[in-house]
This record gives sequence, structure tokens and C-alpha cells, in this order.
Amino acid sequence: MQSIIRTGVAAGLLGLCALSGAQTTQDLLNDAQTTGDVLVNGMGYAAQRYSPLTQINKTNVKRLVPVWNTSLASNTGEQAQPVIHDGVMYVTTFNATFAIDALSGRVLWRSALDLDPGLARVICCGQVNRGAALYEGKVFRGTPDAFMQALDAKTGKELWRTKLLDWEDGYSITGSPIVANGVLITGMAGGEYGVRGFIAGFDPATGKELWRHHTVPGENEPGSDSWPSNDMAKRGGGTTWGPGSYDPKLDLVYWGTGNAGPWDSRGRKGDNKNTASVIAVRPKTGELVWAFQFTPNDAFDFDSISQMVLADIKVNGQTRPVLMHADKNGFMYVLDRSNGKYIAGNKFVKVTWADGLDPNGRPILSAATKRFMENNDKIETWPSNSGGVNWHPMAYSPRTGLLYANTLEFGMEIVGKGPVEYKSRGQLYMGVSIKKLYPEDGNRGYLKAIDPLTGNIKWQVPAQIPHWAGTLVTASDIVFTGDMLGAFKAFDANTGKVLWSFQTGSGIVSQPITWEHKGRQYVTVLSGIGGVYAQNSGDERLRNVPTGGSAWTFALFDNK
Amino acid sequence: MQSIIRTGVAAGLLGLCALSGAQTTQDLLNDAQTTGDVLVNGMGYAAQRYSPLTQINKTNVKRLVPVWNTSLASNTGEQAQPVIHDGVMYVTTFNATFAIDALSGRVLWRSALDLDPGLARVICCGQVNRGAALYEGKVFRGTPDAFMQALDAKTGKELWRTKLLDWEDGYSITGSPIVANGVLITGMAGGEYGVRGFIAGFDPATGKELWRHHTVPGENEPGSDSWPSNDMAKRGGGTTWGPGSYDPKLDLVYWGTGNAGPWDSRGRKGDNKNTASVIAVRPKTGELVWAFQFTPNDAFDFDSISQMVLADIKVNGQTRPVLMHADKNGFMYVLDRSNGKYIAGNKFVKVTWADGLDPNGRPILSAATKRFMENNDKIETWPSNSGGVNWHPMAYSPRTGLLYANTLEFGMEIVGKGPVEYKSRGQLYMGVSIKKLYPEDGNRGYLKAIDPLTGNIKWQVPAQIPHWAGTLVTASDIVFTGDMLGAFKAFDANTGKVLWSFQTGSGIVSQPITWEHKGRQYVTVLSGIGGVYAQNSGDERLRNVPTGGSAWTFALFDNK
Repeated sequence: MQSIIRTGVAAGLLGLCALSGAQTTQDLLNDAQTTGDVLVNGMGYAAQRYSPLTQINKTNVKRLVPVWNTSLASNTGEQAQPVIHDGVMYVTTFNATFAIDALSGRVLWRSALDLDPGLARVICCGQVNRGAALYEGKVFRGTPDAFMQALDAKTGKELWRTKLLDWEDGYSITGSPIVANGVLITGMAGGEYGVRGFIAGFDPATGKELWRHHTVPGENEPGSDSWPSNDMAKRGGGTTWGPGSYDPKLDLVYWGTGNAGPWDSRGRKGDNKNTASVIAVRPKTGELVWAFQFTPNDAFDFDSISQMVLADIKVNGQTRPVLMHADKNGFMYVLDRSNGKYIAGNKFVKVTWADGLDPNGRPILSAATKRFMENNDKIETWPSNSGGVNWHPMAYSPRTGLLYANTLEFGMEIVGKGPVEYKSRGQLYMGVSIKKLYPEDGNRGYLKAIDPLTGNIKWQVPAQIPHWAGTLVTASDIVFTGDMLGAFKAFDANTGKVLWSFQTGSGIVSQPITWEHKGRQYVTVLSGIGGVYAQNSGDERLRNVPTGGSAWTFALFDNK
Repeated sequence: MQSIIRTGVAAGLLGLCALSGAQTTQDLLNDAQTTGDVLVNGMGYAAQRYSPLTQINKTNVKRLVPVWNTSLASNTGEQAQPVIHDGVMYVTTFNATFAIDALSGRVLWRSALDLDPGLARVICCGQVNRGAALYEGKVFRGTPDAFMQALDAKTGKELWRTKLLDWEDGYSITGSPIVANGVLITGMAGGEYGVRGFIAGFDPATGKELWRHHTVPGENEPGSDSWPSNDMAKRGGGTTWGPGSYDPKLDLVYWGTGNAGPWDSRGRKGDNKNTASVIAVRPKTGELVWAFQFTPNDAFDFDSISQMVLADIKVNGQTRPVLMHADKNGFMYVLDRSNGKYIAGNKFVKVTWADGLDPNGRPILSAATKRFMENNDKIETWPSNSGGVNWHPMAYSPRTGLLYANTLEFGMEIVGKGPVEYKSRGQLYMGVSIKKLYPEDGNRGYLKAIDPLTGNIKWQVPAQIPHWAGTLVTASDIVFTGDMLGAFKAFDANTGKVLWSFQTGSGIVSQPITWEHKGRQYVTVLSGIGGVYAQNSGDERLRNVPTGGSAWTFALFDNK
């Protein structure tokens, strides 16, 4: 007799064959509209994390209950956004990829990575992975040891793996890749280890690297004069550990770049292009079309990697193609995504490091920041190096015109140690240390509904422990997100009122999605505490939150 | 401002203080009747795992939904029965004890054990712990390295720990302890390592060992003539790794004893008292009052450690105080628990090793078994060394008069290697090997409703992968149990019909309970695959079941 698990797999395969086969470029383009699957990080290339589904509404959301749970056999931070195709959900963890039957929660296959224990040394900020990409029957993910990997979506068998660089130098991949115009594109991480940031494009079929675009210029390349030396530049950070987004009409991929390295800014006078920036590149070639720098000569670890959200919105009465971005530096930016022109930038959290932005969007440093950058001794400054948001993406509702972001409302005491020498591969290369976070207790975060152009806060909900999760918004004006104590919650997108909550097994630091099957709407989120705040903040209020990764799927209670 | 977690703890403390304070002897005696708490393994000293609660009934059980989940931050087998007092649930894992707010699922404290990694060598059969005992404000548990430990129920602080014996010799504790007549009593494990079994009594207040009763007699003690030598006897097994039960009127504690060691039976001719037996002892002194041996000179690893279930039932028209026991040897026994007299014994699974029982309950060996025990070469025999049941306890409903047991329906090919010498401490001491399990696929288990006196099966539900979990039965005639693929299920106690199922994160090998608070009935179960079958059976059908321990609490969907 056939075994149960094998039968399960067989059913999954039949499903794949019977429905529509492999995901095509057209499927990816339609992702935001096709509610039966979730193919792209951001729930569509525009990364709005907005769903047209309305079955779950403000009245009945209190009837939401778990329909299944699946352990991810992990004690790492579960930050991935699941992707779904033909009834199969793909979930990545730090060291494994799962295919899960989306309706039953049964694991169809699990593909584990064989990782060197020494990796822990170069993973500064939590053992995490933020999700997979799907294309033509393959599941793509980055690995902590800096490989891109392709798995057969049906079997989990590895089809190819391509090495980016040596993990021993501090290179890793934690972000989720994207397939745009037929090219698989990934960012990378390692900014605290003296690496040089880039994004790279691969042939999804073979894994061949097609191009590599370095965010920090090489010798005599444009922008190289924004660095004191080529030696500094080639260890200058500007990593790309967030996810990209894509405008198929303009054929531009948008990717945020990380802080400049080392943190100490005195040793690298100049703007340090293109760190702490957004870059717009051609997916076929990696050609840089434009770049915009949010924090020139960054002194506070202000990565700009939080995902760019694309929408067409009215600006002074005129509909413009914009890119919206909540930066770690505490400003919410709106740019024209066709050319990178600055439209608006406003504080969305407490900001003391800059007094504001000039008409071109360049920060006006506060007097205290200027002193710190000259003397590099000690400063209490806001936001902290965790930023006004961290990596966790925000959602945008075209219905309300608002952005929904889990903002971080805490500052830091940072002590500069002065210029720092690069010592050896995989060693921290920073030159500063963080001594304290403010406030020491009390609220450190808010879920905020933010007007993109003015930065006005329509509503906010405080959280003692800051939320570190993505948000999701639906056409029924519900915002979903989770907290690090484990509660998965629904909020009224118009008022911020808590409509529903469920206690999952561990803390939530992931990216919820919603989808439907045969007329029933589902909401899926991962639980599993980890990541930089849980690991490094010393927040005693997280002391009793157990580790343990699992995937949750919820739906309205079924009276049948 | 007070932190969230600390507030949580404070609320727990207030609860403890405001309600009834520490659990007393009287509380333990009333456990089966007081539905607001669950203090004793077995849900009452009689270990019937029967609840008078009826809010969840056959009609509405389909409305059962999870109300919270808590990760146990583990990848070991979660076999514990949770215990609950004053709104706090205590859960043990292999290496930690948790206090959880029973209504919200928030962890109030976690107390971790510091275990030697070398322990893995002497834990043959899965890294597990089966639960805690509560008494007078303390939480008691055994540890894998053979200590008894007492924790402060309010804070998790260790109050005392008492060493039983060296774990390096193979001694460990996996079972749950019991407090009877004011004495804390534990069994121990290690039967495959040449140990000598015992149960021991402790002063709950101080941890002082009050007595130790060895199941295998010492030199010239009663029963020593059932062993070929004192040397054999002192390594003769008879461990006590199941939980006890207790009759307060008779003041007798009942404990099953494990198989004789080594497995090879030719080297230890004789009955090998009191292995594969039940012993009845006085809790205050450890005095043996009576013993009954289920499998004399056991050749097949037939531990008798499955929990003794106590009830007063009609036998030939007369109500008698009985003890009911499903033995690994495949027979269901009914004994008079006042004196150990045999009343009935009937096969409840396929049995080939014995043709039946004689009028005194002594097995009549089959011709094949006799040949095997003489020649010790090779035999296909049923049940396997896993037994007709394993450790997992059954439930008894006084309403239906039936026992509900997850029976194991598979045999083994066992190869005898002949007499074996004890080599060194903590080394396996067996002399046989298991080559194959039958059937190789197909059903290996049944949930059965069994008449205790006749062994008649009222109904049965097949399972490809055998269930390895305890059962629970309610006064509304619902049986709860879980399977190793992770489904937690409700069955009609009268017909076996599946009424409800929910997919938990991992496989279920634990002991469900039900309880109530302010008029709402809850059901709690642990999920987390592990234990001997998952680890050692090689059953490919479990290949994709992820590890990951968590606690689940369910209640009827609340329309509010």
C-alpha cells in the first residue's frame, strides 16, 4: 500500500500538473490581481502588500481561526514571506526550504541546507531568511553561505547552486530574490564585515550569473570621487539585504542599499555613493539607470533596504509613478520612480540626527550630528541604528491612500571609536559601539497609518516592544501584522482599532500574506522569534518568549 | 513602566495567591472531580483520564478551534501530560519546565536543565519527559540525568534536586512522578543498559529520599530464586518508566515494571521476579504488598509499564475494585487491586508469542516461542517489542464501561544472539536485534474501544502509522487523541466515528487533558514528534513530519 506521505506528495504533483503548470512571466506580472496564488515578495511586483480580497471584513474578522499549523523545525528567526502556487506553499527558513500543502498544512518536502557551523561568526544580526521566488517550476532562494539555489518545485531536489562569494569574507544572503523580465535577481548581506555591496542577475534555468552591479563604484567609476580612496570604497558596504520591487512598464528593478562601512564616518569623508540609497537597474543587464541617496556619508547605520513600494498617486493634482520608501533614517520618501526625482520626504518617527531635508531631499544635519561626525565621541540620537523601520516592509492601500508601517520609536547612545582599520576577513569592521537604547522601557514602537506625501500620521497604535514584522492590508480595510510576543493581529485600516488577535507559538517577525482557494480567504503568517532586535537589544521583556518556528494559516470559522 | 512579561508574571502570582494557594493532599484526592484543575498524571489518582465535563459534545465538537499555542522551543518528543493549578499550566520537556498562563498561552517562566551532551548515549529510545507532579506550591519532575527536581511553582526557581544514581550507568528518568499520601514517588528508566529497577519515595519538602523499593530482589530476598544468579538479578532490568496510579482507600500505589534484562532470555532462566509485573506498594514506606507478573522470563521486551487504570466494576454481578492494564505482551488484564488476584486477561491485538493465559493469568507459550527461547535464533512474532501498546496510556469511561487505547498492530522479526555479558557502564546489554517490522506498510495500529473483562472490541479505527499518544474520554462520550502526522482528533466514544480533526505543527505523542475555567471547557495537548517509534522504526511515512514542540489549547468557537 502506498504510504500516506507519498500519497500526499503525489496529490501535490497532480495538482501542479492539472492546473496551470509552471509559473510564467505573465503569472508574475499578474500576481497582485490573482488572489489564488502569491508568487512574488511584496504580493506583486509593486510590493504594496495589498489584497483585493474582502471575504474577511471588519465585522467577521473576529471569527478568524487557525485552520492548520506546521512546525518549521527551527529555533531561528522566521522572517520569510511564504509564496504559493497551485496549492503548494513554499517557506524558507535559515537552513531549509519547505513545500507545504496550502490547504492541509502537510509537509510535501523539505530541503535542508548543509551549513558550516563557522557561519555563526559572520551572521551578525540573526539567523534568518526572508523568502523564496518562484518561476517556471523552480523555487529560488539565497543561502546564508552566499549561494543562490534553485530547487525543483515538485520534489525539492536541488537543480543548481551558484556561489556569489566566500562566506568567510562575511558575505551572506538573507533577503528574498526576485524574478524580473526573466532574470533572477538577488541582493546580499554582510555590511558590518567590510564587504562591497552588489545585486546580481542569474539565468533561472541554469544558474549562470549574467551580471553583477556593485553599489559602491570601482576605481574611476562614476561616484568614486565620493569616497576618500578606492581601498575604502571596495570595503564600503552598501549591501542589498532587503527585497527588490519591479516596474514592468518602465522595466526597472528598485533595490535599496545598506549603510556605508565602516560605521565610523570620519574615515570616509564624502557622500559614499551609492550606499544608503535606492538604485534603479535594468533587470536584463544590471545597468544602473538612476540612483537616489537618502543618507550621504551615513554615520548611524542607516540602511535604505526597506522595500520600495510602487504606486501611481496624485501629486499636486497630477498622477505620477512614485516609489515610496520608509528609511531607517526616519524619513518617509516619495520619489518619481521613472527618474529618481525627489518629490517629498517627511519624518515619520522622532528624528534628531537631521533637522529636515533640503528641497532636493538631502538631509540637513543637526548641530549635534555635525559635532558627533567631527569628534566621533558620544551622542544620544534618534532613530537608533535599528532605524525608524528596519527591514520589515510596509503595506500600501490604494483605497485609503495610506502606508501601514511598524515604526520603531527608539534612539541610541552611540560611541565613536574613530577611524578603524580593516583587520581580516569576516571580522567586524565598524568603529563604533551602541551603549544604550532610549527609552529603556515604555513604548518603543507604533503601528502607524502614514500619509506618504506629508508624513502625517492618520492613526497610531503603541507597542512596548516594537513590532518587527511586515504589514498586509486588504480591500476590506484590514491591516494584519504580528508582535514579538507572538500575537497575530488584525487592525481597522481606517482607525487602528484592534479587531482580532491570536496567540501563536513564538514571536512574529515575518511577512503575512492573504490568498484564496475555492472562494475561501486564508491568511498565512510565520511565527518564530529571532533577528536583530530579539538577539541583540537586551530587551528583558522578550525573556520568556520561546523560540520555535512554525507556519500558521487562518480562515473564517466554518460553521459546516 | 512595568514590562509586559513582568506584568504577566505578576498576574500569575496574584492568581495563585488569591484563589486557593498551594495544592494539598485533599486537592490531589479530588482531582478527578475538580474540573478547574488537572493535578495528577492520569487526571486523577485512578488514572482513568475521564472527565465529567460535557460542554464539548458530539454535536458541537466540530466547532472546536485553537485558542492559543505556545512553542516549547524543542525538537524532542513531547510526551508530557500538562498539569494545571490556579490558571497556570506546567509542561515538561526533555530539558526544560514551562509555566504557562492557561488562558492566554503566555510563558510565565521557563526553567532549563543543564544536561551533559554525553547523555544522548544512554537515552536509547527518544529524548522525552512525560510530565510533572504538583504539591504544596512545588512542581516536581525527573530529569534525564536521573535527578528528582523541585521547582517553586510561582517562580520556577529550583528548590532542591536529589540524585538517584549515575546517569553514566544508564539510569534516567523519563516518566512522570506522583505524590501519594504526602510522599513524592518516581520510577526510573534504563532497562537496556544493565540497570536494576526501582521506585523511590522522597519528602516533597526537602527532597530527602525516604525509601527505595527495588523491583528485582537482592540476594536471598523473596523472588531471588527466580533468577539464575544474584549477578544477573542486579543487572536484571525491571525498570519503572511509566507513571504510577494510587488508591487512597487501600493506600496502595500501583506501578508497572519493565522487561527483564538482558533481552536474551536463555541466560536468565526462571521467572525473573518482579520484572514485567505490576507492584503494589505502600507510599509511606515503599513496602511491597503484592505483585503480579504478566510475562515471566520475558523474551520480547514486554515492559508492563503502561499505566494501571483503577475502577470499581461489576465482575460476575459483583462490584470489585479492579486494576486494568494493557500490557505490551498483547493481553488486557483485569486484577483485583486489593490483593493482585487475576480476574481476566484477553488478547486485544494480534498475539503469536503465547497461545493464551492459564486460569492464573500465566501465559501459555506458543510452540514457536518455546523453540525461539531454546534456540534463540530467529522468529517472526507478534506483538513487536513495541508491544500491543507502548507507554502511552489508555482512558476508561465509567459511562460506557470501555477502555480506549491506541493499540499497536505490528510484529517483528527478532534475532537472538544468545547469552550476553555485561561489558561496561552505560553500554547496551541486550543480546538480540530486531530485523524487521510487520506489516512493512499498511495499518500498524488501531484506536480501539475494548471491553476490559472480555477483551471484545466494540469498535476500532485503523491507522497506517500507529498512534503513540494517550487517550482522553469525556462524559459527553468523546475520545480525544492525536496521531504522529500531527492531527489532533475527536472520536465518538460509542462508534469510533471521527467527529473533528485539527492539524497541529508536528506529530502528536502526548497525553491530552480537558479542563474548564469560568464555564468554558478547554482541551490541551502537546505536539512534537519524537520517541522510540519516530526515532527507531524507520517508518518512511514519517519522513516529512517536522520536529518542533508546542502546547495547544482548544475550546468551542466563541461567537462573541
